[in-house]
Amino acid sequence: MRDVAIVGAGSTQFGRSQWSLLKLMCEASNEALGDASLGDRRIDAVYVANMGSVRNNRQAGLASALVDRLNVFPAAAETIENGPASGASAVKHGVQAVASGMCDLVLVCGGERMQEVNAFESTEFVSYLSHRYAEYVYGVTLPALAGLFARLYMERHGIRPEHLAMVAIKNHANGARNPRAHLQTPVTMEGILTGPDAFMNNPFIADPLRFFDCCPVSDGASAVLLAPAEMAGELARTPVRVAGIGQATDCQAVHERPDPAELPAVRLAAQRAFAMAGIEPSGVDVAELHDAFTILEIAESEEAGFFGRGEAAGALERGETRIDGRLPINPSGGLKARGHPVGNTGVSQIVELVRQLRGEAGNYQVPGDPRHGFALNFGGFGNNVLATVLERGV
Amino acid sequence: MRDVAIVGAGSTQFGRSQWSLLKLMCEASNEALGDASLGDRRIDAVYVANMGSVRNNRQAGLASALVDRLNVFPAAAETIENGPASGASAVKHGVQAVASGMCDLVLVCGGERMQEVNAFESTEFVSYLSHRYAEYVYGVTLPALAGLFARLYMERHGIRPEHLAMVAIKNHANGARNPRAHLQTPVTMEGILTGPDAFMNNPFIADPLRFFDCCPVSDGASAVLLAPAEMAGELARTPVRVAGIGQATDCQAVHERPDPAELPAVRLAAQRAFAMAGIEPSGVDVAELHDAFTILEIAESEEAGFFGRGEAAGALERGETRIDGRLPINPSGGLKARGHPVGNTGVSQIVELVRQLRGEAGNYQVPGDPRHGFALNFGGFGNNVLATVLERGV
Repeated sequence: MRDVAIVGAGSTQFGRSQWSLLKLMCEASNEALGDASLGDRRIDAVYVANMGSVRNNRQAGLASALVDRLNVFPAAAETIENGPASGASAVKHGVQAVASGMCDLVLVCGGERMQEVNAFESTEFVSYLSHRYAEYVYGVTLPALAGLFARLYMERHGIRPEHLAMVAIKNHANGARNPRAHLQTPVTMEGILTGPDAFMNNPFIADPLRFFDCCPVSDGASAVLLAPAEMAGELARTPVRVAGIGQATDCQAVHERPDPAELPAVRLAAQRAFAMAGIEPSGVDVAELHDAFTILEIAESEEAGFFGRGEAAGALERGETRIDGRLPINPSGGLKARGHPVGNTGVSQIVELVRQLRGEAGNYQVPGDPRHGFALNFGGFGNNVLATVLERGV
Repeated sequence: MRDVAIVGAGSTQFGRSQWSLLKLMCEASNEALGDASLGDRRIDAVYVANMGSVRNNRQAGLASALVDRLNVFPAAAETIENGPASGASAVKHGVQAVASGMCDLVLVCGGERMQEVNAFESTEFVSYLSHRYAEYVYGVTLPALAGLFARLYMERHGIRPEHLAMVAIKNHANGARNPRAHLQTPVTMEGILTGPDAFMNNPFIADPLRFFDCCPVSDGASAVLLAPAEMAGELARTPVRVAGIGQATDCQAVHERPDPAELPAVRLAAQRAFAMAGIEPSGVDVAELHDAFTILEIAESEEAGFFGRGEAAGALERGETRIDGRLPINPSGGLKARGHPVGNTGVSQIVELVRQLRGEAGNYQVPGDPRHGFALNFGGFGNNVLATVLERGV
């Protein structure tokens, strides 16, 4: 198996966009392609991560359409769908294509344009991820599942609403430093939880989760260019190696799991990624976790092994996961503030880590010359999870 | 790169099904898994080929749902979408996963349940494959594109309506011998073209294409189990090696192509697959081509190199592509009679070739102990095409 490196990365602004889905994806792709020193080399394949274009944008064969717009015929092209974890899945498929020797240069582009659907419809659309007969038909939504999970997890591990708010406050503060984040407005404990207007500013969505515990609905695209590690020196200023990938699925219906307050797929995906990379969680210098809901950042940081069970809340209190903390989590703002164009998100996380490992994250750069990055991309409600470990250099 | 073999294959009945999409896919998957001698070996990944479940079945994360139903946690899982070529694309992704060494056993399952959408809506849905701004917004449909292509191709190469009908008659005759085909009724030249009731039986859909020039709208699923060639001897009675895969994309809008009566992506995909397999088109013993419209079987058989340009019509007249001919094409009935559950079709083609190469195709077995099979899976209107060469033995 050949080692694989990231030799180019790019993304759009996140938020509500005037651009079409394809235009968003072209912009991110062109930035990633321009970021590498390709010369006259040809792209072998274009893998697209997207969840909803067939439904929301009336576009099938999105990857073929992107090849057309980028004018990179006769590159192979496919769309990879794994719900909100489509992005990490597409990167994994790109890595397998290069590792197998069947491709040298693979462009992976994640994109989603969510504004085609209104707020109600987007919740309905995302609920297609739930179990068709055990959840969906009873009106289960992802925020509802997250609310039930949060209640159980908080009760069991002594997590208070203040801890959820600390995640939001940290990630909004980070997003305010990231010029491409969807939400760039800092929030305060008083404003969203303890102050006189907090209830109006921050109403319940699915008790105990409030408005500021949920990520926004965003448009955006991100892209990375993958190459065999042995070519990376020529193609990139600072190549970043894909050191480990781990994936695990779990029982789809949350209530059927042996313990619905645990996320074994997160644990196993992380363990597998660390084993492949040959590092421990303590070796990670910067992490992007899947904080579609604030409770998830807390639970994932424990399941992935960064903190013992029940210890993430204390780490939040001590500021250990801030940009200048011991382990910066979501310095980009995460899904909470950078935004969550669903199928794109896993690619965004990788792009943000590449920026950090190259020292190119500007205002939100984590200090100390980070060498290892970790991304966790959470599909369904934790039933298909991918973890990726990146390492500066090849 | 490791050689990859097919060690199990299965499919459902095609047609209108009482079963849900997931049930169809479970049935095909269980047949493929049961077909191999797995013992206590675990599946590493499940790749699903599907085009429309997010829109038509309100189901995203279909691959995760299949893992759940098959109870093969914690196998990795993704859905691969490439329009009507999703099937061959998913097989290719499975081959890359095994070839890379990241997986040993990969189940690839293609499934589509089209009856959720009525006839008008299914044409609309499939037209999402056309160019969003240059075709779709003007009401272009896939039958319309095929009609325009047929007119040009027929005019240039002296193909008459009788030749199109010969494709339909041959494939209906083959389908009548395949117990899992959607359409099992033979048709005659008199019945569909020359007889007094022909116009009523076989009205124009998109002149010059008539009803019997178009494939039906089908439900169905198929699956193959992939393994490293070195494990195949233990796992399969008769392993079949994936000897070659070729893929090529082309300009999306048909009228923008230098010559809209040519299908260069078909040509290039076939050339690449033959080059990888180390054989010539003349080495193929049985082929499954993408006859969504009868004209496509004719054009593809020429572009893939089985016949010189303009020679397929003569070969049809001489019966060379019948089950007992020199090169049997679509002995399963093809899309025309076996059926066309869109995202599934490429996997079906591979499954049908596996049956032929193992000598297990029963009533529609091609004679002469075939060793090499060739599948062509056509995405969009020829803008993303995959060719696969299979070889008996490892």
